[in-house]
Amino acid sequence: MKTVWKYKRDATFFPLSAWERVNLSKLCALARRLDARLAIPATSSNFSMRTRTDIDVDLGAFLITRSGLHKRLITPGHFLRVDVAGSPLHPLAPKPSDETLLHAMIYAKFPSAKAVVHCHAPELEKCRAPVFVLEGHELLKALGLRTHQESFPLAVFPNNQDMGALVKLIEPRLGEAALKVGFVLEKHGLYCIGADIDQAAMRLEALLHLLAAQGASWVAPKNKK
Amino acid sequence: MKTVWKYKRDATFFPLSAWERVNLSKLCALARRLDARLAIPATSSNFSMRTRTDIDVDLGAFLITRSGLHKRLITPGHFLRVDVAGSPLHPLAPKPSDETLLHAMIYAKFPSAKAVVHCHAPELEKCRAPVFVLEGHELLKALGLRTHQESFPLAVFPNNQDMGALVKLIEPRLGEAALKVGFVLEKHGLYCIGADIDQAAMRLEALLHLLAAQGASWVAPKNKK
Amino acid sequence: MKTVWKYKRDATFFPLSAWERVNLSKLCALARRLDARLAIPATSSNFSMRTRTDIDVDLGAFLITRSGLHKRLITPGHFLRVDVAGSPLHPLAPKPSDETLLHAMIYAKFPSAKAVVHCHAPELEKCRAPVFVLEGHELLKALGLRTHQESFPLAVFPNNQDMGALVKLIEPRLGEAALKVGFVLEKHGLYCIGADIDQAAMRLEALLHLLAAQGASWVAPKNKK
Amino acid sequence: MKTVWKYKRDATFFPLSAWERVNLSKLCALARRLDARLAIPATSSNFSMRTRTDIDVDLGAFLITRSGLHKRLITPGHFLRVDVAGSPLHPLAPKPSDETLLHAMIYAKFPSAKAVVHCHAPELEKCRAPVFVLEGHELLKALGLRTHQESFPLAVFPNNQDMGALVKLIEPRLGEAALKVGFVLEKHGLYCIGADIDQAAMRLEALLHLLAAQGASWVAPKNKK
Repeated sequence: MKTVWKYKRDATFFPLSAWERVNLSKLCALARRLDARLAIPATSSNFSMRTRTDIDVDLGAFLITRSGLHKRLITPGHFLRVDVAGSPLHPLAPKPSDETLLHAMIYAKFPSAKAVVHCHAPELEKCRAPVFVLEGHELLKALGLRTHQESFPLAVFPNNQDMGALVKLIEPRLGEAALKVGFVLEKHGLYCIGADIDQAAMRLEALLHLLAAQGASWVAPKNKK
Repeated sequence: MKTVWKYKRDATFFPLSAWERVNLSKLCALARRLDARLAIPATSSNFSMRTRTDIDVDLGAFLITRSGLHKRLITPGHFLRVDVAGSPLHPLAPKPSDETLLHAMIYAKFPSAKAVVHCHAPELEKCRAPVFVLEGHELLKALGLRTHQESFPLAVFPNNQDMGALVKLIEPRLGEAALKVGFVLEKHGLYCIGADIDQAAMRLEALLHLLAAQGASWVAPKNKK
Repeated sequence: MKTVWKYKRDATFFPLSAWERVNLSKLCALARRLDARLAIPATSSNFSMRTRTDIDVDLGAFLITRSGLHKRLITPGHFLRVDVAGSPLHPLAPKPSDETLLHAMIYAKFPSAKAVVHCHAPELEKCRAPVFVLEGHELLKALGLRTHQESFPLAVFPNNQDMGALVKLIEPRLGEAALKVGFVLEKHGLYCIGADIDQAAMRLEALLHLLAAQGASWVAPKNKK
Repeated sequence: MKTVWKYKRDATFFPLSAWERVNLSKLCALARRLDARLAIPATSSNFSMRTRTDIDVDLGAFLITRSGLHKRLITPGHFLRVDVAGSPLHPLAPKPSDETLLHAMIYAKFPSAKAVVHCHAPELEKCRAPVFVLEGHELLKALGLRTHQESFPLAVFPNNQDMGALVKLIEPRLGEAALKVGFVLEKHGLYCIGADIDQAAMRLEALLHLLAAQGASWVAPKNKK
């Protein structure tokens, strides 16, 4: 947090507001915590948050990590301001993350989504399309369930290099309650959505814990259609 | 420890004594160590300690973490002073942890209990009601057994969202020797009790180690009634 | 990074250029990150980078860690400048790492190789000669594949204490595309090659992640000839 | 290291020499590294080193950790100076570790032993008496073998609360080459011996790595008599 003030501009050369600097620093700290548990290997994973200046809101703009950098190393100055379609707001900006279109899809569909975090944690490797049902565990309450006796159908989509195809596959299902929390791309990674960065981070941590718990010691529930 | 002096008041607006600040800092440090081993995911887990001013003793008061915050981030200023029934001593205080009633039950039943720590470590996932018998390991001595040849019946209770029902289930069994060390809520977490924070933390660490040891490499003992 | 300037000379008594100090510090930081995941036990593992002064280029020189020190503790002053055959450029220098010949082989064969990193991570234990096929995972793209649907044949060579024999075994196969990324010595360790330190480190991290993913939860692919 | 100078005396009130302070600090740093991998749970584990003043040599004295403290917290001031039989050199000293007799046995039998480290790492849980044969791995060289093709018979003794009985069991076998490196107490922990602290630490790290490697992915070798 202490270095947050030295970043005056984002990677698209726009000035960063105090609110943006504080919140981008939270995303950077999250990246470093995830790195410590080996969840953002190589240059994978990406993080974004919606901005809230008037002009940004009109554009549907959000800030997202640049491509090609280990996310352990990101600072507020490594985020690009992109429009609703995921295009950087400055022509000389570096390349945004490959999965920017997925973030754009989420922000366009969910007005309440303010942060999206994506990681490649080892706990995810057991997830197979179309769904991994989490059940019976106290921590389900962190995902918004009322009791540990309800179950949470974590959606798992087959991986695809064509972001447009992925968007077409996922978008129709965004109405489902569980999709508002997050979803998995098979043998790729996890997306979590939050009304702020803390909620997105909390959901990610809860999902990884539930996946580890269910894999390590329970009889894995059968995948249901 | 070095930041302990800046917290003048708890979350119920009472002044913190020097003794309270030092001991709450120990609980905060414990929370951060548990976070490093992924044992306090999302906003789960809670920590409490009995206070010792005259007025607090009359009230059966203790200090317990507030709800809704990642426990990695707690400071002495995030603890609430609650009475023997778990109600905050100030009407404007934030909400205490959901499981405050369990802490209250323990302090009411055990005059010698001075600290209660509760976590959600992955090592606990293998515990099934009614009991997980730990045996044959040197570290059993850290739980108060005289030799590694005695066994420790770790009580496991079915999880329940109704704290009153849980109290009714657990309270009659608090006379058993093993319950004075701690107990598990199935697919939820571990409670450990100590005559001070160090003892509660030591018991928690020993139980997690024994569970990991017995699960990773031993033939798991059959659960006995 | 902040201590990088205090190292004026390498372990062969040559002055270190600013560029060398900065890049050796990156190797030292990598060693400490690998130590945190238990990947450089005891005095194992070694790290090297090609230098770029005119005289060094004529000699085919590179900088490599000295032998007999836990790599968690290395500094820029612990690297030896060695010639194309792996001999230190100063007769009073300490002993270079045992596997210096393998590094020399790689630099001689690949003009574009600028860094070689070698570790003993636990994730490697499942690799058996002659090959471990990695497939189906998004992170394969970090190894230079275009999609997750291509497969990466990670070469695995039987271990041998005779470095000359190992060089004879490995050298003829260095033309294969996958060998340009790295290879494994069975029950020994992993070598990764990069156009700079960041790329070598990224490839190492990606390979370890892919090995962990495939072992922990997938049906391990059959080794193919 | 930076706090090493503030400890003027050991726990038996003897002044600490500069050499002792530096070396005890190494043992403290080792304890903290082992804590990070969960290898010194609760108040378990102990560490010792031989001293080298004339009077200490005459007494067969060594410095060993006190009992009843989490070894994560030890400082040079927490070590006791004990004689050849393991008795503290001051009557008001705190209690030394329970296993002091085992350390004394090692120092008495091996004049070249200068440090003994004992931990309870999870990797040890698979060891069963009488022996766990480590074989086929490059890291065996860190234990003094010439090639990865030799095997290392790690001695495993049944645990016993009676230190005298343990000494009687182990002492006759201390002539075996492998015992000079270390041995295991079943369902208890590992002892490693070194000509200095670095060697003892290196052997401990190598043994834990070899045990993890062999357990995680190899067909465990059959225990041989």
